[in-house]
Amino acid sequence: MTPARNRPTPPGLDPVSEIVVRVNYSEADRMGVAYHGRYVVWLDMARTEHLRRTGISYRELEDGGLLLAVTDLRIRFRRAAAYDDLVRIRCWVRDLASRRITFGYAIEHGDHGTLLATGETSLVATDRQFRVVRLPDEVRRRLVPCSDPVRL
Amino acid sequence: MTPARNRPTPPGLDPVSEIVVRVNYSEADRMGVAYHGRYVVWLDMARTEHLRRTGISYRELEDGGLLLAVTDLRIRFRRAAAYDDLVRIRCWVRDLASRRITFGYAIEHGDHGTLLATGETSLVATDRQFRVVRLPDEVRRRLVPCSDPVRL
Amino acid sequence: MTPARNRPTPPGLDPVSEIVVRVNYSEADRMGVAYHGRYVVWLDMARTEHLRRTGISYRELEDGGLLLAVTDLRIRFRRAAAYDDLVRIRCWVRDLASRRITFGYAIEHGDHGTLLATGETSLVATDRQFRVVRLPDEVRRRLVPCSDPVRL
Amino acid sequence: MTPARNRPTPPGLDPVSEIVVRVNYSEADRMGVAYHGRYVVWLDMARTEHLRRTGISYRELEDGGLLLAVTDLRIRFRRAAAYDDLVRIRCWVRDLASRRITFGYAIEHGDHGTLLATGETSLVATDRQFRVVRLPDEVRRRLVPCSDPVRL
Repeated sequence: MTPARNRPTPPGLDPVSEIVVRVNYSEADRMGVAYHGRYVVWLDMARTEHLRRTGISYRELEDGGLLLAVTDLRIRFRRAAAYDDLVRIRCWVRDLASRRITFGYAIEHGDHGTLLATGETSLVATDRQFRVVRLPDEVRRRLVPCSDPVRL
Repeated sequence: MTPARNRPTPPGLDPVSEIVVRVNYSEADRMGVAYHGRYVVWLDMARTEHLRRTGISYRELEDGGLLLAVTDLRIRFRRAAAYDDLVRIRCWVRDLASRRITFGYAIEHGDHGTLLATGETSLVATDRQFRVVRLPDEVRRRLVPCSDPVRL
Repeated sequence: MTPARNRPTPPGLDPVSEIVVRVNYSEADRMGVAYHGRYVVWLDMARTEHLRRTGISYRELEDGGLLLAVTDLRIRFRRAAAYDDLVRIRCWVRDLASRRITFGYAIEHGDHGTLLATGETSLVATDRQFRVVRLPDEVRRRLVPCSDPVRL
Repeated sequence: MTPARNRPTPPGLDPVSEIVVRVNYSEADRMGVAYHGRYVVWLDMARTEHLRRTGISYRELEDGGLLLAVTDLRIRFRRAAAYDDLVRIRCWVRDLASRRITFGYAIEHGDHGTLLATGETSLVATDRQFRVVRLPDEVRRRLVPCSDPVRL
């Protein structure tokens, strides 16, 4: 079987997706910058859209009984995002195993592109009782791991 | 039937409950004070504890198929709570109908008691499909409306 | 002086603005719908964009020493927004006084337009010490109150 | 100079502190368990109390111009915390350098003590312009690194 890493990217689909968010007042902290905990939500938004773009609706997966539970989270914060700034979150699949997906992320300033943070999350496939299960072939087929576009 | 408003408070149980929270960094905004949206969560915490104190576990209600869905929310902000301040949220039942509970709230500074905000939420009983249903008698029996201890 | 209410809308600018958000996993609660407290943040996002559209950057206002502090919040919840749904928040100025702006909001389902909630927030202009001040003429000139497009 | 690692714990003060929180409805997600992003806030609460217990008020530090900015965050999620469960967060100083503090965390079920997650955050001392500075001697003196009570 061809390992996932070697499967070619579908033509015309960049393996790195991106979303843009604006730092809302509720997200800015006493330093005037985005609270570090909010980055976790941005990563969640980014990977949900990454999945959608490849044709996977996480809502439908979950409604069908397959959960993707975050088991590992790692973020390295380099520079702060100010209140009202635009922030771009780029997302890609770093690694794909039979029961696990690892996503990589680069968070950049929306205007000048400065790298603000990098991150990684690993998610394991489970059933509704949180028992680890295999990822459906259909999901594995659609996800294409790629090498990191930035150093994590 | 004796209306709920006239039912006596169980002996020894103050009809007004209270919880205390400390303003965390994640809750403080760019002005250095608690973001106004966080008050909604404090009200939620306060009414959950108010229910628990009267012997009602909201988790058990919901696991049994009864939801309490917020239909109306009103908060009047008077003074700000600074980062790291202690805040006291007092909660009581303002009104009780066959399908609806209205809670009142006073948010005060935890040290000097200054009134920071007042609030009100109405919740309607529903089943899992969000269809309005009657409150169980057991729940109605345990909740004792009282007159507002502060002007809302 | 012509009262604000009678000032005409600038040609070509709808007095009702709108933004669209998607309900993220972090916003969905145990019922599978958007947690009611999240609506407060959506209102904040909507009015910030409403101001921006009229040429007012709230960040710049605040950096210049003028704060808009929420004093009253009211939301009426009618129907739930499910996880991953698109939600449209429409925003307008309900009323404009020398020191206060009142915004109205309609929250609708992003696809089929069903009204999910309506809301209102009043904000008072203050200096950095939270002392009430007059709204700058420049701000008042740009904001155009209109009658409610939906019943609040 | 005696390295920080070898400095003795003040008599009577356990180098591992703990706080207890209850999973609020706003924190529970569609799976009925605490959303993974909320753990970041719990770590923040835990380390703020850890500092306070050793006589350091983070608010006062920041008011004096010294910020502690999170540069690295790592959480390993093992088991979920259900809505309304009590959760205990234990916190300790893993490492102390001239400009950096690394905290370790163990998140456990409040009733039966099952390990739910472990975490680590590194914070760097900065001035108000986010320039890295030395930790004040007074702060370094009060913080006592210890070996991990659980495997991170």
